[in-house]
Amino acid sequence: MSDTKSSLKPAAGFSEAERDAVYKAIFNRRDVRDQFLPDPVAPGVLDRILTAAHHAPSVGFSQPWSFLLIRSIERRRQVHDLFTIANEEAADRFPDEQAKLYQSLKLEGILKAPLNICVTCDRTRGGKVVLGRTHNPEMDLYSTVCAVQNMWLAARAEGVGMGWVSIYKHDALRELLNIPDHVQIIAYLCVGHVEELYERPELEVKGWADRLAIEDIVHDEVWPADKPDK
Amino acid sequence: MSDTKSSLKPAAGFSEAERDAVYKAIFNRRDVRDQFLPDPVAPGVLDRILTAAHHAPSVGFSQPWSFLLIRSIERRRQVHDLFTIANEEAADRFPDEQAKLYQSLKLEGILKAPLNICVTCDRTRGGKVVLGRTHNPEMDLYSTVCAVQNMWLAARAEGVGMGWVSIYKHDALRELLNIPDHVQIIAYLCVGHVEELYERPELEVKGWADRLAIEDIVHDEVWPADKPDK
Repeated sequence: MSDTKSSLKPAAGFSEAERDAVYKAIFNRRDVRDQFLPDPVAPGVLDRILTAAHHAPSVGFSQPWSFLLIRSIERRRQVHDLFTIANEEAADRFPDEQAKLYQSLKLEGILKAPLNICVTCDRTRGGKVVLGRTHNPEMDLYSTVCAVQNMWLAARAEGVGMGWVSIYKHDALRELLNIPDHVQIIAYLCVGHVEELYERPELEVKGWADRLAIEDIVHDEVWPADKPDK
Repeated sequence: MSDTKSSLKPAAGFSEAERDAVYKAIFNRRDVRDQFLPDPVAPGVLDRILTAAHHAPSVGFSQPWSFLLIRSIERRRQVHDLFTIANEEAADRFPDEQAKLYQSLKLEGILKAPLNICVTCDRTRGGKVVLGRTHNPEMDLYSTVCAVQNMWLAARAEGVGMGWVSIYKHDALRELLNIPDHVQIIAYLCVGHVEELYERPELEVKGWADRLAIEDIVHDEVWPADKPDK
């Protein structure tokens, strides 16, 4: 611990070009479902994306994440079957006019993307007491989500698209991937190179929803009394 | 919807310099507790950071996040009181040798940072049925966490530090900030300019925990049979 102080280093803001590159990744990242090319993601590229994930913030530096790299077409077909079952159930929940649009949307790239990545959170990692989890035990789940967002931005910079599939039943996917009970599935990702992306979020382009005005979601000091509901 | 196809645009990977800038943000982002300068964050800078948050991915494009900007020193003192109560409870949970190190750590910059931001998730936003939430209802929480990670990386590029405080009781903070029951607190952030940062995560520098080897957390196809526990 003698090097504690010397580990503090000057930390200036980025150059304008560097800052623009960070914003370029943030604003041009897309949830990709259909634009995947069949080419495999090169090991060097994938290593950088996974290393970016592993440098996410984690509560108490617990690093609760793991990554299952799924390439087998047989296994991806099984995952796709799980998606199809859940998606039919989900479609039934929407009112008629929305259901039609819903069914026209492509919501996953499980088979088209050459690589799927299941990102998990080991709820026991870091021991029985984790710094920062005593009052907010869900913090390890949130750490793992930060890792997913790091991957997404790194992938965009690498010319690799990523899509997050959330239409499946946890227990069925857990069983298929041998995941033990103390490990929670956080994200099922489809990953592959892309040459084209939507300029704006696909669900915005296709008329599913509009972007909210930022002034409606930023407030001073406390929750506004005139906005009990949205 | 006639412009759906024309909204697809070429999406190449970034130049090497741009890619390096994205990784610079990812690898040099720190959870800041004590390096805050007192200078206010300029409105233009803050707007860019919040706009980055608002461009996070969200399940069904539901954009469930809101941001409370807390600058009042009285209110920050009240939040700090909530932290102090919870932190004393948390310290008691650690074994003796760890408790001593725990108590030596500074775990928040609530008063030192000029700006605190409470990030929330409105569980009702997007209506009764949200695309992608039927089988995984926690997806809106995860979307909000992605917004936090976008903020963190944008802040780093702007020379602004950010720290995530998770040591408080939800109900007490909710009451203090007038947050209604259908809105969940996701993150309480301390935000301010910084001139120095730790080279590596502070908890690693201070001997709290080591970084895991990446080969221990990346697996092929399924959860490894020889790793039921970590």
